[in-house]
Amino acid sequence: MTILWAEQALLAGGWAEAVRVEVDDAGRIAGVQSGAAPQGDRHAILLPAPANLHSHAFQRAMAGLTERRGPDPRDSFWTWRQLMYRFLDRLTPDDVEAIAAFVQMEMLEAGYACNVEFHYLHHRPGGLPHDDPAEMSARIAAAARTSGIGLTLLPVLYQFGGCDRRPLGAGQIRFGNDPDGFARLVEGARAALAGLPADTRLGVAPHSLRAVTPEGLAAAIALGDGPIHMHLAEQTAEVEEVLAARGARPTRWLLDHAPVDGRWCLIHCTQMDPAETLDLAASGAVAGLCPITESSLGDGIFDGVRFLGAGGRFGVGSDSNIRIALSEELRTLEYSQRLRDRSRAALATADRSTGRVLFEGAAAGGAQAAGRAAGAIAPGAWADLVALDGGAVDLQGRKGDAILDAWIFAGDDRMVRDVWAAGRHLVQDGHHIAREAITRRYARACAGLRDAL
Amino acid sequence: MTILWAEQALLAGGWAEAVRVEVDDAGRIAGVQSGAAPQGDRHAILLPAPANLHSHAFQRAMAGLTERRGPDPRDSFWTWRQLMYRFLDRLTPDDVEAIAAFVQMEMLEAGYACNVEFHYLHHRPGGLPHDDPAEMSARIAAAARTSGIGLTLLPVLYQFGGCDRRPLGAGQIRFGNDPDGFARLVEGARAALAGLPADTRLGVAPHSLRAVTPEGLAAAIALGDGPIHMHLAEQTAEVEEVLAARGARPTRWLLDHAPVDGRWCLIHCTQMDPAETLDLAASGAVAGLCPITESSLGDGIFDGVRFLGAGGRFGVGSDSNIRIALSEELRTLEYSQRLRDRSRAALATADRSTGRVLFEGAAAGGAQAAGRAAGAIAPGAWADLVALDGGAVDLQGRKGDAILDAWIFAGDDRMVRDVWAAGRHLVQDGHHIAREAITRRYARACAGLRDAL
Repeated sequence: MTILWAEQALLAGGWAEAVRVEVDDAGRIAGVQSGAAPQGDRHAILLPAPANLHSHAFQRAMAGLTERRGPDPRDSFWTWRQLMYRFLDRLTPDDVEAIAAFVQMEMLEAGYACNVEFHYLHHRPGGLPHDDPAEMSARIAAAARTSGIGLTLLPVLYQFGGCDRRPLGAGQIRFGNDPDGFARLVEGARAALAGLPADTRLGVAPHSLRAVTPEGLAAAIALGDGPIHMHLAEQTAEVEEVLAARGARPTRWLLDHAPVDGRWCLIHCTQMDPAETLDLAASGAVAGLCPITESSLGDGIFDGVRFLGAGGRFGVGSDSNIRIALSEELRTLEYSQRLRDRSRAALATADRSTGRVLFEGAAAGGAQAAGRAAGAIAPGAWADLVALDGGAVDLQGRKGDAILDAWIFAGDDRMVRDVWAAGRHLVQDGHHIAREAITRRYARACAGLRDAL
Repeated sequence: MTILWAEQALLAGGWAEAVRVEVDDAGRIAGVQSGAAPQGDRHAILLPAPANLHSHAFQRAMAGLTERRGPDPRDSFWTWRQLMYRFLDRLTPDDVEAIAAFVQMEMLEAGYACNVEFHYLHHRPGGLPHDDPAEMSARIAAAARTSGIGLTLLPVLYQFGGCDRRPLGAGQIRFGNDPDGFARLVEGARAALAGLPADTRLGVAPHSLRAVTPEGLAAAIALGDGPIHMHLAEQTAEVEEVLAARGARPTRWLLDHAPVDGRWCLIHCTQMDPAETLDLAASGAVAGLCPITESSLGDGIFDGVRFLGAGGRFGVGSDSNIRIALSEELRTLEYSQRLRDRSRAALATADRSTGRVLFEGAAAGGAQAAGRAAGAIAPGAWADLVALDGGAVDLQGRKGDAILDAWIFAGDDRMVRDVWAAGRHLVQDGHHIAREAITRRYARACAGLRDAL
């Protein structure tokens, strides 16, 4: 049993002062009491640590390497994808493990407690499976053992190169499985996770409506009872392709043909019409938003005002991992709404500030999307916690919602002091406890990959 | 004479290796030589340090305090402005000096060498001038003596509350001058700057077409020969007001009625039509962009693709100072273009990466707007320099434009190791040399202002 105490904490029921949190040896919150005398491990500000609900870890090593203009006069997501394919063709299992551990460390240092890894790089260069088809999944699991982050692993089903069932392109050959191969992969991934802590989860990710057939989708979601994630409605070209092939826009098609509910997390959703937005909000699924990556790739702006207004659930993920920065991710989401609508405090409500709405939403929605009993400081939840630096000049004297506003709009990761994932105290005084070794290994992997782009 | 040496440096003519830079005792670059043996004060990466071309220092102390929803169901720039007015009504000269020094320190730590301060808070609460009408200007100058930053001070002429020449509102009463009072203020400011280093500059800032008359504008620009800055075309309501009162949109009116040339810097320009955009580009004036603040206040998106395509000059400023972050400011500019156009590498050219175009543009345009002989590493320029951390994991092994792409798109201030303003070595190993004292004084000022919002 560990006792934490904080001057201020955001509890399930709102802000409280002088809060004592008991964490049991399994890493769950055993008790929460406000108005308690200072005791145990003391902090200024304690918050629930959200899950990072969408990541492709390996893309971290490409950060900043794709900002030249491509041969296309009008560069786009699709030219970026070609670069990305060329890069990943070089990656070994050792690279993937080193990059994933580094990404998970950066997530923890940014204030995330859990990495939901949307994992599609399964096979050897050229497309042959590894001897263990779940070799790459095992490397993500090994990284999580090193970093200590909470892991929700989502092996990806990737069948075809488009809605017309064309074969995978050269750059996609390491992703491919038919539904039977995918079932074996999921079993292998389950075995690879066996040694990890009890908060680890396994789900499935049918990649997108471009890459899986209706039958493949049905087969994938029948595997297990964990989270189901899918890329959806990110790019206009994708909307057009799905509309032409299936007679409906992607979100509409999915809502009409799949049992979309709270198990589901739909990634991006930047290209929805108003009716799709409202129906997705009503479904109980989580919209998995990746505002920094969606800016970087020019995907467009999610209709957060309409979606949250209709009670929709959302969380955030760092996706391409070009920057892993929780406060910036939330700020980027809010600012995109303001730029589109020429407004301020776009997602605030009458009784909650913008920062509070963003943070509480991301904590609750992230946990739901991760299939993780977490997202709030409450008994029974995993002790996913982040402590902010009460000495930071922008946090001094701040109370309640103003704390989150200062962190998200004026601050950055440097305000994050301590992070716990299911009670594991991994970030201490601003740094991950294994920062040096993890960084050294990552830098070595990057040196080997240099000039790949 | 100081000798700096860097493995890589961005010179006026492009990237060079093994670069020796001689800085004379006045703070000017005396010589630049590439292919030199390692010597002197050694660094990994040396860049010209841009000027921060637009700041209202005191607003820094409001950062994160205005993210609640106002009484207006549709919150906007104009409700924010009410909050800002209420806040500034509390500020004393001591507060202003403490805040300005802190802001200048943060600018330096972010990689800026110069603070162009658009300074409109002149009088006592209630509107009476101080005994010295330039008291507040003197406090900005005192802050610059403390921080060491290069200062371009722009006293602001603020005559009326709108195009209809209505009197200043209660919140604006501390800003007001008629042209005669403004001339005295400018003389006072000149005296206040007398003790500062030789790179200090004085300009004028007729606030906006809402706040100055055509006669006031003419009188203001006749004072001296320094830079002329003006807020222009930030908000749609402003465009409508100017159009109704003067028969033309703000940018069009100004281009038609004022001698707009390279002395001018027009701040924001988020609301221009395509013809205004092209004509402003042709004028030789600098577009003063503040992408983080323009996101925060929902101003809208500057048409950077069209403006840069037409050879327009731009620089960036932190304006409200809600975040002072050079790399993020440039990233936000580029990402706004991508979100609007659903593109990538929006501002890149065939031979320069996105980061290079952003950085070189901001360095050259910032110097022009500051009236400062700087903006490139070349003999005769002030030694405004920033050294990046070659040990940062995202910079290891990077060459040329990829350095700027890594800093701007994957990095942040933490990559900034050393900064010189006109040869004054103010940031060393990531921290301003007077960080502790400046921060302590700022925190004390903020504690006094707490609950002002």
